[in-house]
Amino acid sequence: MKTDNSNVLRLRKLGIDTHTENIIFMRSNCQVCRSEGFTANTRVAVNRGPDSIIATLNVITSDLIDEDEAVLSEVAFNKLHAAEGDLVMVTHMKPILSFSEVRAKMFGNKFNAPAIDQIINDISHGLYSKIEIAAFVTVCSGDNLALDEVIYLTRAMINSGSTLSWNEKLVIDKHCVGGLPGNRTTPIVVPIVAAAGLIIPKTSSRAITSPAGTADVIEIMTPVTLSLEQIREVVRQEGGCMVWGGAVKLSPVDDLIIAVEKALDVDSAGQMIASVLSKKAAAGSTHTIIDIPVGLTAKVRTKEEAFLLEYYFRAVGLAIGMEVEVMITDGTQPVGRGIGPALEALDVLSVLRNEAHAPADLKERAVQLAGLMLEKGEAAEKGKGVERARAILESGQALEKFYRICQAQGGFKEPEVAHLQHDVLAAVSGVVRSVDNRKLAKVAKLAGAPKSPGAGILFKAPVGSTVKQGEPLFTIYSESEGEISYALSYLHSSNHIVELVSP
Amino acid sequence: MKTDNSNVLRLRKLGIDTHTENIIFMRSNCQVCRSEGFTANTRVAVNRGPDSIIATLNVITSDLIDEDEAVLSEVAFNKLHAAEGDLVMVTHMKPILSFSEVRAKMFGNKFNAPAIDQIINDISHGLYSKIEIAAFVTVCSGDNLALDEVIYLTRAMINSGSTLSWNEKLVIDKHCVGGLPGNRTTPIVVPIVAAAGLIIPKTSSRAITSPAGTADVIEIMTPVTLSLEQIREVVRQEGGCMVWGGAVKLSPVDDLIIAVEKALDVDSAGQMIASVLSKKAAAGSTHTIIDIPVGLTAKVRTKEEAFLLEYYFRAVGLAIGMEVEVMITDGTQPVGRGIGPALEALDVLSVLRNEAHAPADLKERAVQLAGLMLEKGEAAEKGKGVERARAILESGQALEKFYRICQAQGGFKEPEVAHLQHDVLAAVSGVVRSVDNRKLAKVAKLAGAPKSPGAGILFKAPVGSTVKQGEPLFTIYSESEGEISYALSYLHSSNHIVELVSP
Repeated sequence: MKTDNSNVLRLRKLGIDTHTENIIFMRSNCQVCRSEGFTANTRVAVNRGPDSIIATLNVITSDLIDEDEAVLSEVAFNKLHAAEGDLVMVTHMKPILSFSEVRAKMFGNKFNAPAIDQIINDISHGLYSKIEIAAFVTVCSGDNLALDEVIYLTRAMINSGSTLSWNEKLVIDKHCVGGLPGNRTTPIVVPIVAAAGLIIPKTSSRAITSPAGTADVIEIMTPVTLSLEQIREVVRQEGGCMVWGGAVKLSPVDDLIIAVEKALDVDSAGQMIASVLSKKAAAGSTHTIIDIPVGLTAKVRTKEEAFLLEYYFRAVGLAIGMEVEVMITDGTQPVGRGIGPALEALDVLSVLRNEAHAPADLKERAVQLAGLMLEKGEAAEKGKGVERARAILESGQALEKFYRICQAQGGFKEPEVAHLQHDVLAAVSGVVRSVDNRKLAKVAKLAGAPKSPGAGILFKAPVGSTVKQGEPLFTIYSESEGEISYALSYLHSSNHIVELVSP
Repeated sequence: MKTDNSNVLRLRKLGIDTHTENIIFMRSNCQVCRSEGFTANTRVAVNRGPDSIIATLNVITSDLIDEDEAVLSEVAFNKLHAAEGDLVMVTHMKPILSFSEVRAKMFGNKFNAPAIDQIINDISHGLYSKIEIAAFVTVCSGDNLALDEVIYLTRAMINSGSTLSWNEKLVIDKHCVGGLPGNRTTPIVVPIVAAAGLIIPKTSSRAITSPAGTADVIEIMTPVTLSLEQIREVVRQEGGCMVWGGAVKLSPVDDLIIAVEKALDVDSAGQMIASVLSKKAAAGSTHTIIDIPVGLTAKVRTKEEAFLLEYYFRAVGLAIGMEVEVMITDGTQPVGRGIGPALEALDVLSVLRNEAHAPADLKERAVQLAGLMLEKGEAAEKGKGVERARAILESGQALEKFYRICQAQGGFKEPEVAHLQHDVLAAVSGVVRSVDNRKLAKVAKLAGAPKSPGAGILFKAPVGSTVKQGEPLFTIYSESEGEISYALSYLHSSNHIVELVSP
């Protein structure tokens, strides 16, 4: 191909954030567009020294930029390590050979291991456009992946990122499958398990569509953005950590795939299993406990679904040398009282501190999970795990370990909730029959969570409780009057967040 | 939802061409992003008076625009009928209910008729993002659509666009399935068939990835961008037309779906059949002849594939009340000599004018197709169609009808080839064993086709012909020295465009 100066443009910065998408803006009449025949939406290679990315072309027909200039989206600037004024060479991209495997899968072929390796490798190098990732997600959706394909996918995802390893025979981890509001067992389970002497290098994610992710909640109390080296040091010192997984690229492809899955609102069991287990394996875990909440408002709706997931989790674990145990839990209503980073952190601390008003449901879940982990990790006899976990929690050992882990990660601070509060009152007296978790989450988000970490909801009317007319159902926390009124105007247009019936 | 002034922004124009994609650029700290929680890549509704579009958000972090301003991509400006300075209201988009049908299809469900109607309706209203269309294309790919689903899809596509109707018992059309370079039978077949007294309202497409589409070739000789009213008038007057289908939106969804199919390089038989037959039905045809070239470099590679396509075409035709006949033709090498709009138009005219050097292969194909159409249209007895078509062509009646149609469409002009020419010579003597059509097409595109309509290739070494060292294999036509040298530099890096063997 042509590599003379006619393909060279000078970079300008206009501060355009396209999330993870590489976009290049070029003049329609620049010499590159004309000589290469590039038009809007062409996928092109942008080369700067040894660095190269694939970007989608947006064409500028005004004089916003000069003919010898190009603008990159912010993420593309970062990936190229480029600055304004740098010269880049823009050329045709080479065809992505691995996409023919995705096409073959559309026609009913099965993936083999080299095919999946190459696809994941190409996605991790940014070669796939969003629509190509959408096609890959689609052919992997539903029950379109057989067990062996899920195993290949898991292995490919492990190999695509960084890994941690520990000189320990037994490294344990946990994961909860999908979104029950307030289900923050991690910051309780990690200190219990670590206090019992086990190794638990826990990574968590931030909120994508919810009012708080586990990493967001922990960040209220301690820094979670640690390097691999810092994680090693914290775990070496304390036996456990509670960090944000996104900072250490244990499974970089996952972010790209999940972004498309969220946009399509598609949950693929095979993708999910590969995503979870690859991150656990990359973090060096030998044993993993999977919490599957089952309920009509949870991700998994029936026990049958949960049993099938259990089979896949265990079989894939076996293939990659990891022991996986599944715990099927109640997913019919939210856990604890807080919704939003600081409010959920307060629930966690009240459990760790054995306060009288601590949410019993959150404590019980944490103790059950930790108990199973202690048994798996041979830190408790079979059948004695829960008892041991409860003892560690109630004796204050868990709280002490929690503080030590926080100190190792950079220090502990108390959660601070937003300074504006607004009670939403019961219009009539009655017994709570149901709670719409999605609408409740939406109110918390409109109030500012998770961007305003102190914002959210303190929920006071769990299913089965009796409320009197004029008593608060929940309290909205927010940093601004505008957000409160915004949340209220949504509330007024939306009925039945809390359904009351005569006692 | 909130509809006060806090969601209102003032439009600015920056001339950003994103092809068919609606993009809105807003400041990260504008009141809408902050109050609605919009971040990069959120899909939002942009409302201006009664008009509303869905757009993808790109966030600006610099002061390129003000906090109360928004920029739209050009296509979004057009769809909203908006001008710079107009006020728009930006809100959350409503969920697309029909996408749950696409998700269900991922899980193995079949589409029913209302589901496909709703999906096609939503795509035609711009509600689907490119990645959602990619998922739809993927679930329809391969043999994933059963016959009844293809029928539903065809009907839905007919109903989504404009339609033409003729007060005639018999309206005939033809379509060629996929890309044999130079296969421009349309401008020969239409005048033969119309001269025989049949009604043939032919619409064609422009090039997407090839050096010339049929509409591009015809446009060299006569205007092809006609309104529905103008088309009616031309056909009423002359019995036939040769126009660009894209101008009249007979199947508007098709453009959006095809753009994604091209990007994924996925051919779905079901989509293709629905696309072709819906356009024919929308154009009012009662009878359609489908030309399926079979060959290793053609879209359809084996006769078995062609037979299966034939079954689908005929069965779907039956369901929508259209008689479909399939003609399986030779797809092993290009047709005629010209590649590029003007050079292909010259081939067409030399056949119509019965010139001695006219390409015999192009003439023969046109006569065979037209003959079948005359028999179907009862303008010739069974078995006498080809004879009749040949007589109409060789008597000059076809040429006369061709000129009359061109006059009705706005006038005829002679093709003009590019003024620069460069012969590519045989390095050795030999017999041509094979020709790489894709590389040949690429050279034509590098030389400027189809944007420079006079540019392209005149091919002189068909398979089986003998060439001597130093004789031209083909001639490159271009409007600029730069494009010639660009085409040549590609030629130098690329071997075996024409493969010669010892005689």
